[in-house]
Amino acid sequence: MGVSDMNLQGVLDDIVAELSPRLGEGRVATYIPALARVEATHFGIALRTREGAEFRAGEAGRAFSIQSVSKVFSLALAMRIHGQDLWAGIGREPSGNPFNSLVQLETEQGVPRNPFINAGAIFVADRLVSSCAHPREALREFVSTLCGEEIHFDEEVAASEAATGFRNIALANFMKSFGRLENPVEPVLDLYFHQCSLAMSCAQLAHGMGFLCADGVNPHDGRQVVSHRQARRINALMLTCGTYDAAGEFAFRIGLPCKSGVGGGIVATVPDRLSLCVWSPGLDETGNSALGMAALESFVSRTGLSVF
Amino acid sequence: MGVSDMNLQGVLDDIVAELSPRLGEGRVATYIPALARVEATHFGIALRTREGAEFRAGEAGRAFSIQSVSKVFSLALAMRIHGQDLWAGIGREPSGNPFNSLVQLETEQGVPRNPFINAGAIFVADRLVSSCAHPREALREFVSTLCGEEIHFDEEVAASEAATGFRNIALANFMKSFGRLENPVEPVLDLYFHQCSLAMSCAQLAHGMGFLCADGVNPHDGRQVVSHRQARRINALMLTCGTYDAAGEFAFRIGLPCKSGVGGGIVATVPDRLSLCVWSPGLDETGNSALGMAALESFVSRTGLSVF
Amino acid sequence: MGVSDMNLQGVLDDIVAELSPRLGEGRVATYIPALARVEATHFGIALRTREGAEFRAGEAGRAFSIQSVSKVFSLALAMRIHGQDLWAGIGREPSGNPFNSLVQLETEQGVPRNPFINAGAIFVADRLVSSCAHPREALREFVSTLCGEEIHFDEEVAASEAATGFRNIALANFMKSFGRLENPVEPVLDLYFHQCSLAMSCAQLAHGMGFLCADGVNPHDGRQVVSHRQARRINALMLTCGTYDAAGEFAFRIGLPCKSGVGGGIVATVPDRLSLCVWSPGLDETGNSALGMAALESFVSRTGLSVF
Amino acid sequence: MGVSDMNLQGVLDDIVAELSPRLGEGRVATYIPALARVEATHFGIALRTREGAEFRAGEAGRAFSIQSVSKVFSLALAMRIHGQDLWAGIGREPSGNPFNSLVQLETEQGVPRNPFINAGAIFVADRLVSSCAHPREALREFVSTLCGEEIHFDEEVAASEAATGFRNIALANFMKSFGRLENPVEPVLDLYFHQCSLAMSCAQLAHGMGFLCADGVNPHDGRQVVSHRQARRINALMLTCGTYDAAGEFAFRIGLPCKSGVGGGIVATVPDRLSLCVWSPGLDETGNSALGMAALESFVSRTGLSVF
Repeated sequence: MGVSDMNLQGVLDDIVAELSPRLGEGRVATYIPALARVEATHFGIALRTREGAEFRAGEAGRAFSIQSVSKVFSLALAMRIHGQDLWAGIGREPSGNPFNSLVQLETEQGVPRNPFINAGAIFVADRLVSSCAHPREALREFVSTLCGEEIHFDEEVAASEAATGFRNIALANFMKSFGRLENPVEPVLDLYFHQCSLAMSCAQLAHGMGFLCADGVNPHDGRQVVSHRQARRINALMLTCGTYDAAGEFAFRIGLPCKSGVGGGIVATVPDRLSLCVWSPGLDETGNSALGMAALESFVSRTGLSVF
Repeated sequence: MGVSDMNLQGVLDDIVAELSPRLGEGRVATYIPALARVEATHFGIALRTREGAEFRAGEAGRAFSIQSVSKVFSLALAMRIHGQDLWAGIGREPSGNPFNSLVQLETEQGVPRNPFINAGAIFVADRLVSSCAHPREALREFVSTLCGEEIHFDEEVAASEAATGFRNIALANFMKSFGRLENPVEPVLDLYFHQCSLAMSCAQLAHGMGFLCADGVNPHDGRQVVSHRQARRINALMLTCGTYDAAGEFAFRIGLPCKSGVGGGIVATVPDRLSLCVWSPGLDETGNSALGMAALESFVSRTGLSVF
Repeated sequence: MGVSDMNLQGVLDDIVAELSPRLGEGRVATYIPALARVEATHFGIALRTREGAEFRAGEAGRAFSIQSVSKVFSLALAMRIHGQDLWAGIGREPSGNPFNSLVQLETEQGVPRNPFINAGAIFVADRLVSSCAHPREALREFVSTLCGEEIHFDEEVAASEAATGFRNIALANFMKSFGRLENPVEPVLDLYFHQCSLAMSCAQLAHGMGFLCADGVNPHDGRQVVSHRQARRINALMLTCGTYDAAGEFAFRIGLPCKSGVGGGIVATVPDRLSLCVWSPGLDETGNSALGMAALESFVSRTGLSVF
Repeated sequence: MGVSDMNLQGVLDDIVAELSPRLGEGRVATYIPALARVEATHFGIALRTREGAEFRAGEAGRAFSIQSVSKVFSLALAMRIHGQDLWAGIGREPSGNPFNSLVQLETEQGVPRNPFINAGAIFVADRLVSSCAHPREALREFVSTLCGEEIHFDEEVAASEAATGFRNIALANFMKSFGRLENPVEPVLDLYFHQCSLAMSCAQLAHGMGFLCADGVNPHDGRQVVSHRQARRINALMLTCGTYDAAGEFAFRIGLPCKSGVGGGIVATVPDRLSLCVWSPGLDETGNSALGMAALESFVSRTGLSVF
């Protein structure tokens, strides 16, 4: 059955109904005040087909802190600018370790395993700092163009990240000690902390990820964001590395390329068909949104839209 | 374009032609004599569509030692017998470590990360020993049924594995020391060493994996081998964990569920469409068949048949 | 004050009195039945000066399973036979990891850090198997000569070790997989399990270790057991590596070369002065005898006999 | 033979003569310019007996960068101020890992193994920042008092350490991320980088370490620096943890408490008898002064003054 024949609005509504008794599950991230004060009971979901049809349910229009979901945007921008050269300094393998671990980085001489662990995203930020005169603004504009509307940083969140991000400061200095960063640590972390602070809604994220199910083309303006092959490769990285320590579990239970953030957002793509985003701030012990994962599992079960 | 409209024989012939200048690349596994004396120049490829059409090129009919490819069969049999209970003692995440590493096993108290690293396959073998009166024979019959013809162990290979498999003996005893095996180490390793010794051709393996692109149904007899969901989940595990340390690289460059063995074989599935197998004994530094990986990359490039 | 001027019998008696309210502290090792059925309340202590004066208190004459204390004897015998060549395949550094860990062994390609972790003792056993026609008997005779009386294996303990020693079997096979053992695994482990099963009393162990405070000379027969320099080096290894994960703690609180075993025995040497042995089966969380450690701390505090 | 009966000047002269053909061995540390421009051919040695006799040979009066040797001073000062409480947040065991490793720190939740690895010294610096109004000056005065003369920082070295010390910045932020530091990272690292920059000669260091062989009493003014027991414990820590990855090797070959620095200095104590210092900037592959280690081995061999 083609996506255009499915009652996708009904699917989203059913998911909201199915999960409503579970609202509030999981634990909200507390390491910065702006995240800690978000209620665990929020839930939103939105999807956008390749053809441009949009569907929303729950709080799909409410902005939240996208956190690590931003790693997809920064990677896409870096792949667009640096092409194949980007991969000279970073791997493409699952790490098998926590997202903020320094162990593997020590064993592997400062080369991050993939762009979706923190060390990898800091590496990507370093390359953007090298190639962009105003890296923060360049990233913000890139995301805005993908979404078809202006997207903004939450400066309170960015400041909190900077003030408490000792682990990320450690990661950046550790890579610097191995000679893996081209720039001083400060501007690299400034970009990294800002990208994490992007405030976006499920609907905006479903838009912004649309190029991943459309051969790399921005559905808003028809321009090539990344090549067809690069878009497929970002999907592959999301599936193998996009959800912290639970990538295998996501593949096993959901079977879609996903990228999650500690703000409770998860974006997913059904290659060639649609992009979607779900948000619920309560996290499970793997750091992924508990209801977000349940919603995606339900979505795949209801639609059969898995890559496997 | 549907698979039935493709000139799949032409695709396979083109791949053989494309790779013929590279025959002999890579290094043949040398840890047992029976593998060491195989020429690196062999190359075969075979595929079978869900509908039953078969295509072959190169030495598609020549038997080789399937080694770790057998982990797909033993996992399928164990999932069929034990269902969800199997997962109580084993994970589903990429390990991020070499296939025969003991490090993670120590940190994680003897629980293997997934069924495709050696520790995980030994765990699966243990469960088969628990549930089968004649585990070796049960596995051999299971594989034969999937292939529609009798498949056999290579007893010379099995004996060599047993005589030199100190690392696997260490792994099994290590898990036993954590209380993770139900049976004595000897019969578990006997099954494990035998499954690795199965001798099969590309054509046979493409047949034998047919259930993975057919909702779990054995295309030879129409019987349900594993459930539809279980078949999808095996595909997911193959994509995230099936190719040693190079699972991310396979996903990035090929984008299909694959399982490789040190004998030089790689099986792959295009979910809902076809199963294929390529064989070339020369391995790259990740332990995967060098030309096998190149052939799969060429296949995906020529057909567009990637899951992403 | 010289040792000959001290009231050493009084010191030992005072230690017994001091610790009597604490008898039963710690947890007896339970991994084999013969150890598990020993009461935690035993306590014995014995010392022997370089000049041959002997002092005993508590159950100093009761035999117990010396377990890892035996690693001092096997090392001394291997150093005597192989001299400097022994060190080609084994390190002399503290491991920083549990005594039975496989992690470091994997990172360091099967070369044990030192002779007092299990992997190192198995390496030493391998070299003894290489050089002795009847290694078990050779070791037993060596120990008997040091003690001036016949010492025996406890065959029940040895059989239990063999039947349950999966971790040690894993260690031996792991080293074998790196090509670090000259002999098959079985005879090496047979020697290792037997040396652990030696049954000796505190008085016998204080005798048997006498060569370590006497320039390497057996005080019973005046023969050179190992060279003066070798004796000093064994003392150094005991201080840096002799007490599992607690070597730093022993040095900090006691300051004497010590070697402990899970049977609850600890031998210690005061270089040039005396050797002593304390036994109490209750272990602390580091695997060392809880009261044994307390007794040694009290001994040093009462006599000032620390190397620092 | 008592120390007062030895011809210690002759011993030092003989050592200088013995090693003169080897001057220039090893590789000078190059990570900061001020260290890199020191010639490898320097060699100095000085000792001071408990009774106050002093002996010097070679360039015993020439100042060099003491680097990690300073960890003895900062530890002594912190033990003096904080007593037993210091040990609530830091271990006393050899690490088994490189001095600047982050791996163990991650596994052990930010608690350093001992005060002589970099993480441990940063922890000690943090406590000094907590307890001293002017921590830099407090440390400088403490060292000056021990030496009986004014000692100074080399501000060029301190600035270079700060500008290039990414690994140490990473370590401090990593511990901070685990909540293990009481103060902001900056003042802690400021103290740490300054202590490493202390410029002292062999003669000054032999003086400054005199309290370690004199029951904790400053031989210059007769005041108790640390308790007798604390002095013994610092010696114990030096022996088990003082020479990077080579503590076992130092114990085995030399058998004295030692602390080395990448500037090429090594201090050693013969408990109750004397303190000594040797300096030669060429380092071996363990990061210890190559000729310094040779000199200490020769010293022990010539005098028999080992603790074992």
